[in-house]
Amino acid sequence: MGTKIGTQSAEISSPVYLRSYASVVGPKEGEGPLKYSFDEITDDEMYDEQTWEKAESKMVKTAYSKILSKGGITPSDVDYIFTGDLLNQCIASSFGLKESQTSFFGLYGACSTMAESLALSSMLVDGGFAQNIVAITSSHYCSSERQYRFPIELGSQRTPTAQWTVTGSGGLLISSISDNNNVFVKKITVGKIVDMGIKDVNNMGAAMAPAAAETLITHFKDFNISPDYYDLIVTGDLGSLGKEICSELVLANGYDISQNYEDCGVMIYDAKKQDVHAGGSGCGCSASVLAGELMSRLKKAELNKLLFVGTGALLSPVSSGQGQSILGIAHAVGIER
Amino acid sequence: MGTKIGTQSAEISSPVYLRSYASVVGPKEGEGPLKYSFDEITDDEMYDEQTWEKAESKMVKTAYSKILSKGGITPSDVDYIFTGDLLNQCIASSFGLKESQTSFFGLYGACSTMAESLALSSMLVDGGFAQNIVAITSSHYCSSERQYRFPIELGSQRTPTAQWTVTGSGGLLISSISDNNNVFVKKITVGKIVDMGIKDVNNMGAAMAPAAAETLITHFKDFNISPDYYDLIVTGDLGSLGKEICSELVLANGYDISQNYEDCGVMIYDAKKQDVHAGGSGCGCSASVLAGELMSRLKKAELNKLLFVGTGALLSPVSSGQGQSILGIAHAVGIER
Repeated sequence: MGTKIGTQSAEISSPVYLRSYASVVGPKEGEGPLKYSFDEITDDEMYDEQTWEKAESKMVKTAYSKILSKGGITPSDVDYIFTGDLLNQCIASSFGLKESQTSFFGLYGACSTMAESLALSSMLVDGGFAQNIVAITSSHYCSSERQYRFPIELGSQRTPTAQWTVTGSGGLLISSISDNNNVFVKKITVGKIVDMGIKDVNNMGAAMAPAAAETLITHFKDFNISPDYYDLIVTGDLGSLGKEICSELVLANGYDISQNYEDCGVMIYDAKKQDVHAGGSGCGCSASVLAGELMSRLKKAELNKLLFVGTGALLSPVSSGQGQSILGIAHAVGIER
Repeated sequence: MGTKIGTQSAEISSPVYLRSYASVVGPKEGEGPLKYSFDEITDDEMYDEQTWEKAESKMVKTAYSKILSKGGITPSDVDYIFTGDLLNQCIASSFGLKESQTSFFGLYGACSTMAESLALSSMLVDGGFAQNIVAITSSHYCSSERQYRFPIELGSQRTPTAQWTVTGSGGLLISSISDNNNVFVKKITVGKIVDMGIKDVNNMGAAMAPAAAETLITHFKDFNISPDYYDLIVTGDLGSLGKEICSELVLANGYDISQNYEDCGVMIYDAKKQDVHAGGSGCGCSASVLAGELMSRLKKAELNKLLFVGTGALLSPVSSGQGQSILGIAHAVGIER
């Protein structure tokens, strides 16, 4: 049974564990600094499929199956799936999970989808509606580039503020049953839409940073805690530029996160060696960093309290073409052990 | 606190009321048999905006504001919004609700989104996470046609099995507080993805009917009830062809729904006078029929038990172009008074 806290937050009162997790990523991600944290690194972007979209679906399917096997459960043990991705009509998720034979909730939260699915899963388990829920998302550099920007074959030049969409899928098993590592979800803040009037589609980090900052400030206020309550605060995925803006905006409101703040988009690539400009992005970015490096550090007790803040840019080429700004949203999930 | 029932269902145990509802539709819908049930009928498809997408967003915005005012609450009383639509990246919902200043969950369930949002809202209220949640969806004939099929200016001929995307938005206020009409959500069945291998994108009804039938059969089995438990069973939106297929599939499994079964896509237009072929479709179809005619009949006690089954076709022009079939999904929400 949950409790509403403050204006936008909820406390999970029964034990809701992160029982299992898995990630599958592409070759570029597999060359980055987090390479040892992923469950599978594919040889190429096609993953033995004929299209990028099918490759992305296959990554979702593989990650889903790994989450179940690592959690020691069968498909029939899963009560619900929460999932979504960046492709129009979220086809990566639906085709990737079409054989799951499990009650299915489709989400659209852009790059905030991992946090959104984790928040909703935790609420449903806490509310007594489920024992096991899988929250899983994905993105793919090639399928995203051609849908949102240009076909990659054109070799279009990218601006310095552009982010690189992560090829990968990651997800977690949210459960009322522990795997004895005792990692659980405790504090949730669900974001509002923030419109700062930013229209530069090659600078998503700047568009999402105010939403991340607002959710962070609300989280601290609603729970009456300071940033040092957490060992680590991780946004996903603002990139290097957005991370800086977020940190400054939060500081301007009286909270200093400079000592314990990271961003999934910054963590996943080596900015010096890998040509990714402002860093990684995409639903698969925060998902594979959470369901890899971050969960692994929680399990090993290198982290005891983590605040995971998924950030999304709500826009489409049509909305931008019609002169609309880029809307930002961010959801925060506090994970403890 | 909820209870998981059977394989895919949940029972809402505390009172979760449908406290308010509203709908805004376009001129064609306003000429149909349900014209007296809508809160607003627009003069044209543009609704004083410059693009169809912006018109759709404005319908969402207007419907949202009417739900609040009819429910006698202010924007700050709303704990969460669940919303989604058919446009790429769900821009109708996000731009329509960007000024809501309320915690926002984006969904993608194609035309099943109204039932999906209603199910999740009910679970969160029952779980103690919220007092008031708005579930709202939309669709627009012109924005959908150009995105999924052809620009309407081409005047392309439609097949007899094609459905007409409803222009409209509808939504409900799900609350722990009653408006004294005592209409509440009781029984929920969350659908799985059903893939029957159907690839004809001009026959969505046939693609969705097996999913609707499977969810109906599961609902009857999970709760151990027969179809006559409900005064009315309404799918939304299979259209005339899909409705027939669904009825036959359910009968082949031993349940006869022929006496108390309707479909939102059939109800919303006059098949003889309005040139809509197999009937209405789109997220806005089941939303405006539920948040209009059906809620009005429940309030007036003309209906005491309604089973609302939202049906969605999970596909995109890209998935169809790559030879993938049309996936179906359906969620059932039992509403009583």
